[in-house]
Amino acid sequence: MKRTLIKETAELAGKQVKLSGWVNVRRDHGKLIFIDLRDRTGVIQMVIIPDKVEAYAAAKEARSEFVISVEGLIKERPASQVKADDPNSKVEIEVEKMEILSRVEGELSFDPSKKDLDVNLPTLLDNRNLALRNKKVNGIFLVYSQILKSYAEAMRESGFLEIKTPKIVSAATEGGANFFKIKYFKRDAFLAQSPQFYKQAGVGAFERVFEIGSVFRAEQHFTSRHVNEYIGLDAEMGFIENFSDIMDQLQQAMRRIMKDVEANCADILKEYEIEEIAAPEQFPRIKLTEALDILKKEYKKETEGIDIDPEGERMISEWAKKTYNSDFIFLTHYPVSVRPFYTMPSADPQYTESFDLIFKGVEIATGGQRIHNYEQLVASIKRHKLNPEDFTSYLDIFKIGMPAHGGWGLGSERIVQKILNIDSIKEAILFPRDVKRLTP
Amino acid sequence: MKRTLIKETAELAGKQVKLSGWVNVRRDHGKLIFIDLRDRTGVIQMVIIPDKVEAYAAAKEARSEFVISVEGLIKERPASQVKADDPNSKVEIEVEKMEILSRVEGELSFDPSKKDLDVNLPTLLDNRNLALRNKKVNGIFLVYSQILKSYAEAMRESGFLEIKTPKIVSAATEGGANFFKIKYFKRDAFLAQSPQFYKQAGVGAFERVFEIGSVFRAEQHFTSRHVNEYIGLDAEMGFIENFSDIMDQLQQAMRRIMKDVEANCADILKEYEIEEIAAPEQFPRIKLTEALDILKKEYKKETEGIDIDPEGERMISEWAKKTYNSDFIFLTHYPVSVRPFYTMPSADPQYTESFDLIFKGVEIATGGQRIHNYEQLVASIKRHKLNPEDFTSYLDIFKIGMPAHGGWGLGSERIVQKILNIDSIKEAILFPRDVKRLTP
Repeated sequence: MKRTLIKETAELAGKQVKLSGWVNVRRDHGKLIFIDLRDRTGVIQMVIIPDKVEAYAAAKEARSEFVISVEGLIKERPASQVKADDPNSKVEIEVEKMEILSRVEGELSFDPSKKDLDVNLPTLLDNRNLALRNKKVNGIFLVYSQILKSYAEAMRESGFLEIKTPKIVSAATEGGANFFKIKYFKRDAFLAQSPQFYKQAGVGAFERVFEIGSVFRAEQHFTSRHVNEYIGLDAEMGFIENFSDIMDQLQQAMRRIMKDVEANCADILKEYEIEEIAAPEQFPRIKLTEALDILKKEYKKETEGIDIDPEGERMISEWAKKTYNSDFIFLTHYPVSVRPFYTMPSADPQYTESFDLIFKGVEIATGGQRIHNYEQLVASIKRHKLNPEDFTSYLDIFKIGMPAHGGWGLGSERIVQKILNIDSIKEAILFPRDVKRLTP
Repeated sequence: MKRTLIKETAELAGKQVKLSGWVNVRRDHGKLIFIDLRDRTGVIQMVIIPDKVEAYAAAKEARSEFVISVEGLIKERPASQVKADDPNSKVEIEVEKMEILSRVEGELSFDPSKKDLDVNLPTLLDNRNLALRNKKVNGIFLVYSQILKSYAEAMRESGFLEIKTPKIVSAATEGGANFFKIKYFKRDAFLAQSPQFYKQAGVGAFERVFEIGSVFRAEQHFTSRHVNEYIGLDAEMGFIENFSDIMDQLQQAMRRIMKDVEANCADILKEYEIEEIAAPEQFPRIKLTEALDILKKEYKKETEGIDIDPEGERMISEWAKKTYNSDFIFLTHYPVSVRPFYTMPSADPQYTESFDLIFKGVEIATGGQRIHNYEQLVASIKRHKLNPEDFTSYLDIFKIGMPAHGGWGLGSERIVQKILNIDSIKEAILFPRDVKRLTP
């Protein structure tokens, strides 16, 4: 008999089916045994009566998280037991056969069938496999998979080509710090901190490219928004008129993601009590200097120099929400001093044609226009006290004709973290890596 | 004026447009200058007459690969100049304004507008940015992007969830060799050689998972089919009946990829003179021992022990093509001795429930059923002379109820290499990494 998925049973009352999955909850009522069976598509109540001797014996033995397979009859449940928001509560299965396929060794560290796990972060991550069986925790990764899909679709529909670029690189460029060092046969090499140079090369070949790939940062951070390995959603586009084109494109991708998540992950948003994501047609765009003025006036927050800290990002996001009903805000025109050498300067050369995108208080993307003229780029490298000879391969890109271009780097995990209002980004990564954590 | 893409001009005769792109070929006929302009969507002939003084001066100066922007009138070309297979040959543009946006520094190493570049592999890779402007070379990555898209779509449609797993791992498991070592803060760590353990964990949480991610292999290979960093297309599925289910699923993904490439990349297949990809509904599946018998009988090839070498893979692929008209063949039931400890043994315990998929003579995928019982897995680790204590995190997966499962690892770049009959896999990777090459 072929396996039926639990979500399909709602329409199968009166039919004989085979179901497989995990024991979610088991209730022994003396005579009757009730087991909630869970598969990737839902949960169904199973009823096992003593008359079915072998099935009953298996049900007696079964414990939480055992893997089982059953055969039986799908029956409609009394109207009083049907929950409006759960199509699977319409039916139950009267079990005739049950087989235990896999058992649990020892005790479970916690019960994953509870609505909220209520365990601390180290316990959650140390027992990752068990935690992922909890519906709320599991749902994070259903939303995450949707983000990956929607991002790729949005980019492809705008004529971007998907590329993959190397993560082992010969030189720790872009400043030098924060790179992991690797032993590459007889040489030293480094793990790529971003696909920046390669995606710019992609513009010279394909005009518009995007990449979904691993990013490695050797930063000694201990915050709720940093990890040392994450998945970057990068893009780079050529033949732009100005850097607004880049923000337009990123805005379009973000709106697409939010729309798809709202449409396809409604049940998970509900679990997390997220009512709506405010992604208006036009995200507010304000200069960083204006943002600092607003912080000063409205939040009495003084800033040293021209830059914004995490507290400032939270405040300006709050301001954008109340002023424009937007969970997103672009801050633009960062000063030259806080941007990498390849950033295009503005008409006022103290500033740059660059932006950060803040979503619900956290910076999720950094981008801008890049310098595309060879001589200007060499001069900028020197002005940043770097040596053009260390950038030979990169500079080659600009010797053979490069259009005006720019792009962004976007952190995929921060998107899901903020959509679901999750405390730590580590909860939004299957197997996170931080300064102290390399397992599981 | 907004930019028009070249492919759109075929339908715009009589209209005023702005085009931007690269100088593909420039022909100076004394009075008239002809320039073929190239953008990501095609090539169009531009005509520049001396009367347009400024445009004419720019056209005089323009050289191959300069980035330019022009405005002018789209006109139909005489029927005698229209090529049936090139919709853009229907029209040309009479240029009124031309602006040079970016110049070439020094001499180009070769002319990318030629049909075939005819340069050796090191030259091709050292001048990667220029080579990628050649239509044939460029086309490889259009096919590659299609493969990534079709793979993800095929997996999602079968209920697989896309996951991303860490590439920095704490232990060099699965045997120990072939790992790159990295300095992770104060500790040693390694680059993941496959997402094997993590995708199996994914089965415990999501039943069906796939991953598109970087794979790192510290192998000292110097062949046309090996590199040290590539993109793996992995998948793992739970609740299988037997390992045929896995082959069915992989076959479905491969057929989907081939169908989409034939439909959407027909012009590139034509450039490479690929007439068809034989991907029948059912790929032949034969036991490895039978394959070795066929090699002996039909090709007089003797093999030591029970394994197949690259020459044998080429021969058995040739045999599958002539016998079943299939470019694909599954070899099954590899002996225990050549498979990792987690592979499920067959009824005859000398063999395993495993397979390789050979495509046009090269192994592109390896897969099989895994052991899902905790005790059996511990015993297998010991039998392989490994220490279960080195696999604590991995073994945890099997302590909380795991269904029968299996999956595969598939090399994405070998697929495009073999589709287009490209000599070296390095040509099928944007910026390949081998024992000697870390740049560009």
